[in-house]
Amino acid sequence: MPNVKLTLQYDGTDYNGWQIQPNGRTIQGELTRVLSILDQRHVTVYGAGRTDAGVHAEGQVANFTLQRDFDLRELRDGLNGNLDRDLRVLAAEIVPDSFHARASARLKEYRYRIWTADVVSPFVRRYVHHYRGQLELEQMRRAADHLIGEHDFRAFTVTASDVEGSVRTIERIEIVEEENSLAIYVAANGFLRYMVRAIAGTLIDVGRGRLSVAKVSQALSTLDRDQVGPTAPACGLTLLRVDY
Amino acid sequence: MPNVKLTLQYDGTDYNGWQIQPNGRTIQGELTRVLSILDQRHVTVYGAGRTDAGVHAEGQVANFTLQRDFDLRELRDGLNGNLDRDLRVLAAEIVPDSFHARASARLKEYRYRIWTADVVSPFVRRYVHHYRGQLELEQMRRAADHLIGEHDFRAFTVTASDVEGSVRTIERIEIVEEENSLAIYVAANGFLRYMVRAIAGTLIDVGRGRLSVAKVSQALSTLDRDQVGPTAPACGLTLLRVDY
Repeated sequence: MPNVKLTLQYDGTDYNGWQIQPNGRTIQGELTRVLSILDQRHVTVYGAGRTDAGVHAEGQVANFTLQRDFDLRELRDGLNGNLDRDLRVLAAEIVPDSFHARASARLKEYRYRIWTADVVSPFVRRYVHHYRGQLELEQMRRAADHLIGEHDFRAFTVTASDVEGSVRTIERIEIVEEENSLAIYVAANGFLRYMVRAIAGTLIDVGRGRLSVAKVSQALSTLDRDQVGPTAPACGLTLLRVDY
Repeated sequence: MPNVKLTLQYDGTDYNGWQIQPNGRTIQGELTRVLSILDQRHVTVYGAGRTDAGVHAEGQVANFTLQRDFDLRELRDGLNGNLDRDLRVLAAEIVPDSFHARASARLKEYRYRIWTADVVSPFVRRYVHHYRGQLELEQMRRAADHLIGEHDFRAFTVTASDVEGSVRTIERIEIVEEENSLAIYVAANGFLRYMVRAIAGTLIDVGRGRLSVAKVSQALSTLDRDQVGPTAPACGLTLLRVDY
C-alpha cells in the first residue's frame, strides 16, 4: 500500500473549493472520483489545505494510499487524462507512510494579487482582484510587519471553531509591485479559514487610508473581527507551495 | 465625426474570430453591437487584422467614426462595461481622418507559444499549443532564417484569393526559450490567412526532424503547400501589436 504524494495546480474559478461535497464540483471530489476508478476501490484523498471556492493553486499537495501498483508517470498521466484541464497533476511520488499532506506541512505560502491598473487584462481576469485606485504601499508594508510572528489571528477569520486553536506564526509577508498589479505574499506555518483574504482586505483598507496601522496592530490583542478589513474576494488568492 | 482608434486585448477562446457573422460571437460583432448602442446608429468597425477563431490578441487595433461626442475615458469604460471580460478596450484615442486600422498598418507582430513540458499549467491552457517532445531549436532557427525577407508565401496559406497578392516581408522571426515553453515571434508588414500558424506548424516539423531546412527554403519558390508543415492550432497564437 504505497503512500503517494501529488503536487497539483488548479484554476479554482469553476470549483466549489477543495473539500468534497455531495453536490458540486470540488478538487478533492474530482481526485477521489478518478483515483477510485484507477485503484478500483474508494480512495481517501488528504489535502495540505482546504482552499475555498474560487481559490487557485500553483502547488497544492495531496496524499493517499493505493492498493494497486502504478508506475508514477503512468499514474500522473492517467489522472490528467481523466481530469479537466483546469486541474493538473504536476508530479506523483512515493513518500514514507508517515507522510500526511496536512499534518506534515511545515510552511505554506499564498499569493494575493490585486490588479491596480484601470483595465483588467483578459489573460489574468480569473486570477486577480481588481482595485482601481491609489494604494499607499509604505502604509501597507508597515501594517503587514505587525502581523509577522506568532499571534492569535482570531480577528482575521470567521468564528473560530478550529480544534487547532487560532494561534499561527507568519514567517513572512512581502508586498511586491508587479506589472499593473500588487502581489501580497504570505508564508506561515498554517492558516485559519479566510485568513489570507482577511489580511489582504485589511491591507487594501490600510492602503486606501480607510484603516490605520495602529488599528491593525490592536486587532491582534482585541481579536475583534470588526476592527480590520473585509475578506477580499477569492479570485485573487493562489496557494503557491507547501513545504515539508 | 471623430475617427477613433481602439487598442484591444482578448482571450479568443470563446470567439468565432474577429470578423462579424450573422450567427456566432465575434470580436468585431461585439464591438459593433456595443458601439452602435452608444452612438445610437450603426457603427462600422475596421480591424487591423482578421484574427481567426480561437486566436488571442494583446494589442489588436480597430477604428471607426462616431457621430456623437464622447470623453475618451468614458468611451473606453462604457465599452468595457458592456463587453464580456474576455474582451477589453485598453485605450481609446482620436486619430487623423486618414487613419485606417488595416490600411495604415506598417508592421504586425504575432507570438506562437508551444508548451513543451509534460503537463500544461491550468493558467496558460487556453494560450498555448502542447507539443510533448524534443524540438531541435537550432534547426528551427535555421529554417526560420530562410523565411525572413520579402517572399511569396503562397506555400504558407490556404488557396490564395487575396486581392493583395501573396508577397509579404517578414522583418523578424525569433524563437525564444521561455519557462516550459518555446515562443516564436514573427513580425511582418502583413500576413496571409493562416500564415503564422503554417509557419509555426512548419517550424515544429523541422524541430521534430520530420521536415528538412532545405524543404522549407524550396517551398518559397515551389509555392507548394504540401511541402511544408501543417497549420498549427489557433490557441497558441496571439497578435501582440500593430505598428503605424
